Amino acid sequence: MTQPYDDNNVFAKILRGEIPSHKLYEDADTYAFMDVMPQGKGHCLVITKSSCRNILDAEPENLAAVIATTQKLARAVKRAYDADGVTVMQFNEPASGQTVFHLHFHIIPRFEGIAIKPHTGQMEDQAVLAANAEKIRQALSELG
Amino acid sequence: MTQPYDDNNVFAKILRGEIPSHKLYEDADTYAFMDVMPQGKGHCLVITKSSCRNILDAEPENLAAVIATTQKLARAVKRAYDADGVTVMQFNEPASGQTVFHLHFHIIPRFEGIAIKPHTGQMEDQAVLAANAEKIRQALSELG
Repeated sequence: MTQPYDDNNVFAKILRGEIPSHKLYEDADTYAFMDVMPQGKGHCLVITKSSCRNILDAEPENLAAVIATTQKLARAVKRAYDADGVTVMQFNEPASGQTVFHLHFHIIPRFEGIAIKPHTGQMEDQAVLAANAEKIRQALSELG
Repeated sequence: MTQPYDDNNVFAKILRGEIPSHKLYEDADTYAFMDVMPQGKGHCLVITKSSCRNILDAEPENLAAVIATTQKLARAVKRAYDADGVTVMQFNEPASGQTVFHLHFHIIPRFEGIAIKPHTGQMEDQAVLAANAEKIRQALSELG
Protein backbone atom coordinates (compact mmCIF):
# COMPACT_ATOMS: atom_id res chain seq x y z
CA MET A 1 0.00 0.00 0.00
CA THR A 2 2.75 2.47 0.98
CA GLN A 3 5.94 2.76 -1.06
CA PRO A 4 9.16 1.62 0.65
CA TYR A 5 11.50 4.21 2.16
CA ASP A 6 14.43 5.19 -0.09
CA ASP A 7 17.40 6.53 1.88
CA ASN A 8 18.81 8.39 -1.14
CA ASN A 9 16.26 11.17 -0.68
CA VAL A 10 17.56 14.72 -0.13
CA PHE A 11 16.51 14.91 3.54
CA ALA A 12 18.25 11.64 4.37
CA LYS A 13 21.37 13.13 2.76
CA ILE A 14 20.98 16.29 4.86
CA LEU A 15 20.70 14.15 8.02
CA ARG A 16 23.90 12.30 7.03
CA GLY A 17 25.67 15.62 6.37
CA GLU A 18 26.12 14.82 2.68
CA ILE A 19 24.19 17.95 1.67
CA PRO A 20 24.41 21.25 3.59
CA SER A 21 21.39 22.85 5.24
CA HIS A 22 20.60 25.97 7.25
CA LYS A 23 20.08 24.26 10.59
CA LEU A 24 17.62 25.71 13.09
CA TYR A 25 17.22 23.04 15.75
CA GLU A 26 18.12 19.44 16.48
CA ASP A 27 17.31 16.88 19.16
CA ALA A 28 17.57 13.10 19.43
CA ASP A 29 14.59 12.47 17.15
CA THR A 30 14.15 15.53 14.92
CA TYR A 31 15.97 18.11 12.82
CA ALA A 32 14.74 21.53 11.63
CA PHE A 33 16.14 23.64 8.79
CA MET A 34 15.22 26.28 6.21
CA ASP A 35 13.24 25.24 3.12
CA VAL A 36 15.51 26.22 0.18
CA MET A 37 12.46 26.86 -2.03
CA PRO A 38 10.39 28.95 0.39
CA GLN A 39 6.69 29.57 -0.25
CA GLY A 40 6.91 32.54 2.13
CA LYS A 41 9.42 34.42 4.29
CA GLY A 42 10.81 32.12 6.98
CA HIS A 43 9.39 28.87 5.53
CA CYS A 44 11.12 26.04 7.39
CA LEU A 45 10.87 22.28 7.73
CA VAL A 46 10.93 19.77 10.56
CA ILE A 47 11.93 16.20 9.77
CA THR A 48 12.18 12.97 11.72
CA LYS A 49 15.56 11.25 12.13
CA SER A 50 13.79 7.93 11.56
CA SER A 51 13.52 6.26 8.19
CA CYS A 52 9.93 6.88 7.25
CA ARG A 53 8.34 8.16 4.11
CA ASN A 54 5.38 10.13 5.46
CA ILE A 55 2.49 9.97 7.93
CA LEU A 56 1.21 6.76 6.35
CA ASP A 57 4.17 4.62 7.47
CA ALA A 58 5.44 6.62 10.49
CA GLU A 59 5.42 5.27 14.04
CA PRO A 60 3.29 7.34 16.47
CA GLU A 61 6.52 8.11 18.42
CA ASN A 62 8.07 9.65 15.28
CA LEU A 63 4.99 11.81 14.85
CA ALA A 64 4.89 12.90 18.49
CA ALA A 65 8.53 14.01 18.29
CA VAL A 66 8.09 15.80 14.97
CA ILE A 67 4.93 17.64 16.04
CA ALA A 68 6.61 18.79 19.29
CA THR A 69 9.48 20.29 17.28
CA THR A 70 6.98 21.72 14.79
CA GLN A 71 5.34 23.53 17.69
CA LYS A 72 8.70 24.98 18.79
CA LEU A 73 9.36 26.24 15.28
CA ALA A 74 5.81 27.60 14.84
CA ARG A 75 6.25 29.69 17.99
CA ALA A 76 9.74 30.74 16.91
CA VAL A 77 8.80 31.91 13.41
CA LYS A 78 5.80 33.81 14.78
CA ARG A 79 8.14 35.63 17.14
CA ALA A 80 11.00 36.06 14.64
CA TYR A 81 8.82 37.81 12.05
CA ASP A 82 6.09 39.16 14.35
CA ALA A 83 3.82 37.09 12.08
CA ASP A 84 0.02 37.25 12.21
CA GLY A 85 -0.30 33.49 11.94
CA VAL A 86 1.44 30.25 11.03
CA THR A 87 0.46 27.56 8.52
CA VAL A 88 1.51 23.96 9.13
CA MET A 89 1.27 21.52 6.20
CA GLN A 90 2.27 17.90 5.77
CA PHE A 91 2.00 16.16 2.40
CA ASN A 92 1.70 12.46 1.70
CA GLU A 93 2.51 11.06 -1.72
CA PRO A 94 2.90 13.01 -5.00
CA ALA A 95 -0.84 13.64 -5.47
CA SER A 96 -0.73 15.76 -2.31
CA GLY A 97 2.40 17.69 -3.33
CA GLN A 98 5.04 15.59 -1.54
CA THR A 99 8.31 15.86 -3.47
CA VAL A 100 10.82 14.51 -0.92
CA PHE A 101 9.86 11.12 0.47
CA HIS A 102 11.01 11.53 4.04
CA LEU A 103 8.47 12.55 6.73
CA HIS A 104 8.45 16.34 7.05
CA PHE A 105 6.23 19.19 8.24
CA HIS A 106 6.19 22.62 6.58
CA ILE A 107 5.98 25.69 8.84
CA ILE A 108 5.17 28.98 7.11
CA PRO A 109 4.80 32.33 8.91
CA ARG A 110 1.71 34.15 7.66
CA PHE A 111 0.83 37.81 7.29
CA GLU A 112 -2.61 39.39 6.75
CA GLY A 113 -3.38 39.64 3.03
CA ILE A 114 -0.34 37.70 1.82
CA ALA A 115 -1.03 34.33 0.21
CA ILE A 116 1.34 31.36 0.29
CA LYS A 117 3.38 31.33 -2.92
CA PRO A 118 3.07 28.27 -5.16
CA HIS A 119 5.93 25.74 -5.00
CA THR A 120 7.85 26.95 -8.06
CA GLY A 121 11.11 25.06 -7.60
CA GLN A 122 12.92 28.43 -7.50
CA MET A 123 15.93 28.24 -5.13
CA GLU A 124 16.25 31.10 -2.61
CA ASP A 125 19.54 33.02 -2.33
CA GLN A 126 21.82 31.37 0.27
CA ALA A 127 22.53 34.69 2.04
CA VAL A 128 18.79 35.27 2.51
CA LEU A 129 18.36 31.74 3.88
CA ALA A 130 21.31 32.24 6.24
CA ALA A 131 19.90 35.53 7.55
CA ASN A 132 16.44 33.99 8.07
CA ALA A 133 17.98 31.01 9.85
CA GLU A 134 19.86 33.34 12.22
CA LYS A 135 16.64 35.25 12.96
CA ILE A 136 14.72 32.04 13.76
CA ARG A 137 17.55 30.57 15.89
CA GLN A 138 17.57 33.83 17.87
CA ALA A 139 13.80 33.55 18.48
CA LEU A 140 14.20 29.90 19.50
CA SER A 141 16.85 30.84 22.05
CA GLU A 142 14.68 33.69 23.41
CA LEU A 143 11.74 31.29 23.83
CA GLY A 144 14.05 28.89 25.68
CA MET B 1 0.96 36.92 22.48
CA THR B 2 -1.68 34.23 21.85
CA GLN B 3 -5.39 34.99 22.18
CA PRO B 4 -7.24 33.30 25.05
CA TYR B 5 -9.34 30.19 24.39
CA ASP B 6 -13.07 30.87 23.92
CA ASP B 7 -15.23 27.82 24.71
CA ASN B 8 -18.16 29.12 22.66
CA ASN B 9 -16.42 28.05 19.44
CA VAL B 10 -18.21 25.54 17.19
CA PHE B 11 -15.86 22.63 17.93
CA ALA B 12 -16.24 23.07 21.69
CA LYS B 13 -20.00 22.93 21.12
CA ILE B 14 -19.59 19.74 19.07
CA LEU B 15 -17.54 18.19 21.91
CA ARG B 16 -20.29 19.10 24.40
CA GLY B 17 -22.93 17.61 22.07
CA GLU B 18 -24.64 20.98 21.61
CA ILE B 19 -24.14 20.81 17.83
CA PRO B 20 -24.38 17.53 15.86
CA SER B 21 -21.45 16.15 13.88
CA HIS B 22 -20.72 13.16 11.66
CA LYS B 23 -18.48 11.30 14.11
CA LEU B 24 -15.66 9.12 12.78
CA TYR B 25 -13.56 8.28 15.82
CA GLU B 26 -13.16 9.17 19.48
CA ASP B 27 -10.71 8.37 22.25
CA ALA B 28 -9.89 9.91 25.64
CA ASP B 29 -8.04 12.87 24.13
CA THR B 30 -9.31 13.37 20.58
CA TYR B 31 -12.43 13.43 18.40
CA ALA B 32 -12.68 13.09 14.60
CA PHE B 33 -15.59 14.09 12.36
CA MET B 34 -16.50 15.23 8.85
CA ASP B 35 -15.76 18.81 7.79
CA VAL B 36 -19.18 20.24 6.83
CA MET B 37 -17.56 22.54 4.25
CA PRO B 38 -15.28 20.02 2.53
CA GLN B 39 -12.44 21.17 0.29
CA GLY B 40 -12.40 17.70 -1.26
CA LYS B 41 -14.21 14.34 -1.03
CA GLY B 42 -13.76 12.85 2.43
CA HIS B 43 -12.31 15.98 4.05
CA CYS B 44 -12.35 15.37 7.81
CA LEU B 45 -11.06 16.96 10.99
CA VAL B 46 -9.32 15.79 14.15
CA ILE B 47 -9.64 17.92 17.27
CA THR B 48 -8.26 17.78 20.78
CA LYS B 49 -10.63 17.42 23.73
CA SER B 50 -8.47 19.95 25.59
CA SER B 51 -9.19 23.65 25.67
CA CYS B 52 -6.57 25.03 23.35
CA ARG B 53 -6.78 27.45 20.49
CA ASN B 54 -4.13 26.10 18.13
CA ILE B 55 -0.54 24.83 17.98
CA LEU B 56 0.76 28.02 19.58
CA ASP B 57 -0.85 27.38 22.99
CA ALA B 58 -1.23 23.56 22.92
CA GLU B 59 0.56 21.23 25.32
CA PRO B 60 2.88 18.74 23.60
CA GLU B 61 0.66 15.91 24.97
CA ASN B 62 -2.37 17.42 23.18
CA LEU B 63 -0.39 17.51 19.96
CA ALA B 64 0.92 13.95 20.32
CA ALA B 65 -2.63 12.68 20.80
CA VAL B 66 -4.05 14.71 17.92
CA ILE B 67 -1.30 13.71 15.47
CA ALA B 68 -1.75 10.02 16.38
CA THR B 69 -5.46 10.26 15.55
CA THR B 70 -4.64 12.28 12.43
CA GLN B 71 -2.47 9.37 11.29
CA LYS B 72 -5.32 6.90 11.86
CA LEU B 73 -7.64 9.09 9.80
CA ALA B 74 -5.05 9.69 7.05
CA ARG B 75 -4.69 5.93 6.61
CA ALA B 76 -8.46 5.44 6.75
CA VAL B 77 -9.35 8.06 4.12
CA LYS B 78 -6.63 6.75 1.81
CA ARG B 79 -8.19 3.30 2.08
CA ALA B 80 -11.82 4.46 1.98
CA TYR B 81 -11.39 6.35 -1.30
CA ASP B 82 -8.40 4.44 -2.72
CA ALA B 83 -6.80 7.92 -2.72
CA ASP B 84 -3.45 8.67 -4.36
CA GLY B 85 -2.33 10.79 -1.41
CA VAL B 86 -3.42 12.69 1.66
CA THR B 87 -2.90 16.34 2.61
CA VAL B 88 -2.68 17.30 6.28
CA MET B 89 -3.05 20.99 7.17
CA GLN B 90 -3.20 22.87 10.46
CA PHE B 91 -3.90 26.61 10.59
CA ASN B 92 -2.99 29.05 13.32
CA GLU B 93 -4.75 32.41 13.59
CA PRO B 94 -6.90 34.11 10.92
CA ALA B 95 -3.96 35.13 8.70
CA SER B 96 -3.30 31.42 8.11
CA GLY B 97 -6.93 30.55 7.39
CA GLN B 98 -8.01 29.43 10.87
CA THR B 99 -11.75 30.09 11.26
CA VAL B 100 -12.57 27.98 14.35
CA PHE B 101 -10.33 28.69 17.31
CA HIS B 102 -9.99 25.20 18.74
CA LEU B 103 -6.93 23.10 17.81
CA HIS B 104 -7.72 20.99 14.74
CA PHE B 105 -6.00 19.18 11.88
CA HIS B 106 -7.49 18.94 8.38
CA ILE B 107 -7.16 15.61 6.55
CA ILE B 108 -7.98 15.67 2.84
CA PRO B 109 -7.76 12.64 0.53
CA ARG B 110 -5.99 13.58 -2.71
CA PHE B 111 -6.29 12.33 -6.28
CA GLU B 112 -3.89 12.89 -9.20
CA GLY B 113 -4.79 16.06 -11.08
CA ILE B 114 -7.46 17.27 -8.63
CA ALA B 115 -6.65 20.42 -6.67
CA ILE B 116 -7.96 21.19 -3.20
CA LYS B 117 -11.04 23.40 -3.51
CA PRO B 118 -10.93 26.82 -1.87
CA HIS B 119 -12.74 27.21 1.46
CA THR B 120 -15.99 28.71 0.14
CA GLY B 121 -18.18 28.42 3.20
CA GLN B 122 -20.57 26.24 1.15
CA MET B 123 -22.22 23.60 3.37
CA GLU B 124 -22.19 20.02 2.01
CA ASP B 125 -25.44 18.05 1.84
CA GLN B 126 -25.99 16.10 5.09
CA ALA B 127 -26.72 12.83 3.23
CA VAL B 128 -23.38 13.09 1.40
CA LEU B 129 -21.57 13.74 4.68
CA ALA B 130 -23.34 10.79 6.32
CA ALA B 131 -22.38 8.45 3.45
CA ASN B 132 -18.74 9.63 3.54
CA ALA B 133 -18.62 9.20 7.31
CA GLU B 134 -19.88 5.62 6.98
CA LYS B 135 -17.22 4.87 4.35
CA ILE B 136 -14.43 6.23 6.55
CA ARG B 137 -15.69 4.46 9.70
CA GLN B 138 -15.72 1.21 7.68
CA ALA B 139 -12.09 1.77 6.61
CA LEU B 140 -11.10 2.57 10.21
CA SER B 141 -12.63 -0.68 11.41
CA GLU B 142 -10.89 -2.65 8.64
CA LEU B 143 -7.53 -1.12 9.60
CA GLY B 144 -8.21 -2.10 13.22
